[in-house]
Amino acid sequence: VRFGIQVVEKRVVGDSEEAVAAALADLLRRVDLVVLTGGLGPTADDVTREAVAAATGRELREAPEVLEWIRARYADLGREMPRVCRQMALVVTGSRPLLNSRGSAPGLLLEVEDRLVVALPGVPWEMETMLTEQVAPVLAERWPGSGRMARTLVLGGVMESVVEGRVRHLYDRFGRDRATILGSPGLVRLVLAGEGGQDLDRMETAFREVLGADVAGVDVGGLEEVVLGRLRGRGQTLATAESCTGGLVSAGLTAVAGASEVFVGGVVSYSNAIKERLLGVPRATLEACGAVSEEVARTMAAGARERLQADWGVAITGIAGPGGGTAEKPVGLVHWAVAGPGDVAHRQAVFGGGRDAVRRWSVNSVLDLLRRELEGEG
Amino acid sequence: VRFGIQVVEKRVVGDSEEAVAAALADLLRRVDLVVLTGGLGPTADDVTREAVAAATGRELREAPEVLEWIRARYADLGREMPRVCRQMALVVTGSRPLLNSRGSAPGLLLEVEDRLVVALPGVPWEMETMLTEQVAPVLAERWPGSGRMARTLVLGGVMESVVEGRVRHLYDRFGRDRATILGSPGLVRLVLAGEGGQDLDRMETAFREVLGADVAGVDVGGLEEVVLGRLRGRGQTLATAESCTGGLVSAGLTAVAGASEVFVGGVVSYSNAIKERLLGVPRATLEACGAVSEEVARTMAAGARERLQADWGVAITGIAGPGGGTAEKPVGLVHWAVAGPGDVAHRQAVFGGGRDAVRRWSVNSVLDLLRRELEGEG
Repeated sequence: VRFGIQVVEKRVVGDSEEAVAAALADLLRRVDLVVLTGGLGPTADDVTREAVAAATGRELREAPEVLEWIRARYADLGREMPRVCRQMALVVTGSRPLLNSRGSAPGLLLEVEDRLVVALPGVPWEMETMLTEQVAPVLAERWPGSGRMARTLVLGGVMESVVEGRVRHLYDRFGRDRATILGSPGLVRLVLAGEGGQDLDRMETAFREVLGADVAGVDVGGLEEVVLGRLRGRGQTLATAESCTGGLVSAGLTAVAGASEVFVGGVVSYSNAIKERLLGVPRATLEACGAVSEEVARTMAAGARERLQADWGVAITGIAGPGGGTAEKPVGLVHWAVAGPGDVAHRQAVFGGGRDAVRRWSVNSVLDLLRRELEGEG
Repeated sequence: VRFGIQVVEKRVVGDSEEAVAAALADLLRRVDLVVLTGGLGPTADDVTREAVAAATGRELREAPEVLEWIRARYADLGREMPRVCRQMALVVTGSRPLLNSRGSAPGLLLEVEDRLVVALPGVPWEMETMLTEQVAPVLAERWPGSGRMARTLVLGGVMESVVEGRVRHLYDRFGRDRATILGSPGLVRLVLAGEGGQDLDRMETAFREVLGADVAGVDVGGLEEVVLGRLRGRGQTLATAESCTGGLVSAGLTAVAGASEVFVGGVVSYSNAIKERLLGVPRATLEACGAVSEEVARTMAAGARERLQADWGVAITGIAGPGGGTAEKPVGLVHWAVAGPGDVAHRQAVFGGGRDAVRRWSVNSVLDLLRRELEGEG
């Protein structure tokens, strides 16, 4: 919705010059802007340059200054440019090459009558950087003043269908196409679209009235950002103890740049021996209650907090499946706990959806419990 | 390529009944099979049922047996069915509902003259399960005996452009459209397409001759599967010590079902205090060499192996960025090490591409070093 551009279609076509050229020609008849990604690299299946030339009736020629730039990129890495990379210096006549600050494949920007074609590399971080740094300014200049904006409410520990039921009446009030709900395991995103800041403020207020404390944050990537931000604000630290999630909580936290100010580390205690040795879970507790139990989750959280010397410790133990379930403790049973300066909070649930979904539900559930504990403490 | 079905196009269109219906009508003019995913849930933006009915000139009616089945799914979870879920019981006339063993949204299968339309939920594991269990048998029956098959060689610790240069001459020999190369940080996939097993064997042999020990495995999801498989075969165990990857190695290993036979656990030692306390890295080494150094990587790997009592220990320490780099130790510098029954192997590199790419390169690099150590030992 930025720049007032409405995305009407995404297409994925094969690595064939004909297929890409046909899709591009078709779309140029219907839309003002086509962004292609991928197919700009050095390999034989990289055909985007050829396809753009074919679809727009232009030619390809090698640009010496682009070739020189590609060689320099490889030289920076202490490597010689492989010969196959030469094709990356081919430029569609009339286009502007877009140099790539995070890789070696250049993009291109081409005006076709009153339409615009942009081609960017498929590598996500290269594409994103070039989009932000080089393409966005062009779009802002071309379509100025269009103000449709979006705001995303992130909700933790809730199911999509439950949220939907609670906010459905607000769709009628604000218009069905102005709110989109996106569910993932343990996390729901509500994307609100408005004509400007005030309009969005009104919508946010109305949705927050209904959703209350389930709203974890606004315009954040995930619960990781929310809890890291709150802990940073308090000058407190966090440690993790993970069993069935096997490091997913810590991997998610450390995906956020600057996490090291808050996150000191964690223990992935897949075996009982490690729960005992590194986290101090008593063998008697493991034997009496089993590894997947409230008692073990609580002791793991407290153990992470003490042994890793952090202000807060979070812990997860569960049965992600597909094997390992029993009648009493089925696949999907997860216990999670948060140990802080006060006491230890605990929750449990039986999650469905298979190993990956159980693990993702567990990650968001423990982060959301930590968030609520931090809010409750005020 | 299974069932001889060639995927000619993927399209993503907005959550609008008109857009989905228009795309479906267009595709039904050109292809034999259209698979739609998503838009089958309980929310107001789930419009696939309506769009299929509109595009094929059919009606929607509530099917009591489907409604009953949805209620039962919620009852299994100990919940009452939210009212919004009632729309999931709407069935396109003439279609066959596909019940969903991993969620509550049914799919549908509809014959339109000699074309086939399949709609599946967008949740990946629900979609995959239904595709395998319910749709694949229908396709196999409809298009029997078509034998085009694929085989994927997975290569570790190599760059896409380097692999491309080495195998390019084989494209000429076997045909340009029979090999597709897919690069990701630290991992390259070469997908070979052939007319049957013998044909694929010939291609695999030719590619292996060129690629040698860089081929880590065939038809595997990633290096995690490869190393877990080899260690399981030897009855050996593995522990991890991660700094800049923050648990990504252990999260990847434990994403594989049954990892617990091999993987005992790990330490995410984001702070120096934890490197010292839990992994036994001497403070003097940390002070003399810095946390990102060959010495610390080696000591972390050996520490993980000893403290977590495993046969093998792997370790990563590096600067993922964006901050934290110096002239001597730039952003992207990573040291990784593998400690086994013999000595400790170590490698280092400066990876580009930003925080996420540096972390992914690091994960695949340490897993690939472990794989090569396991092969070297025979």
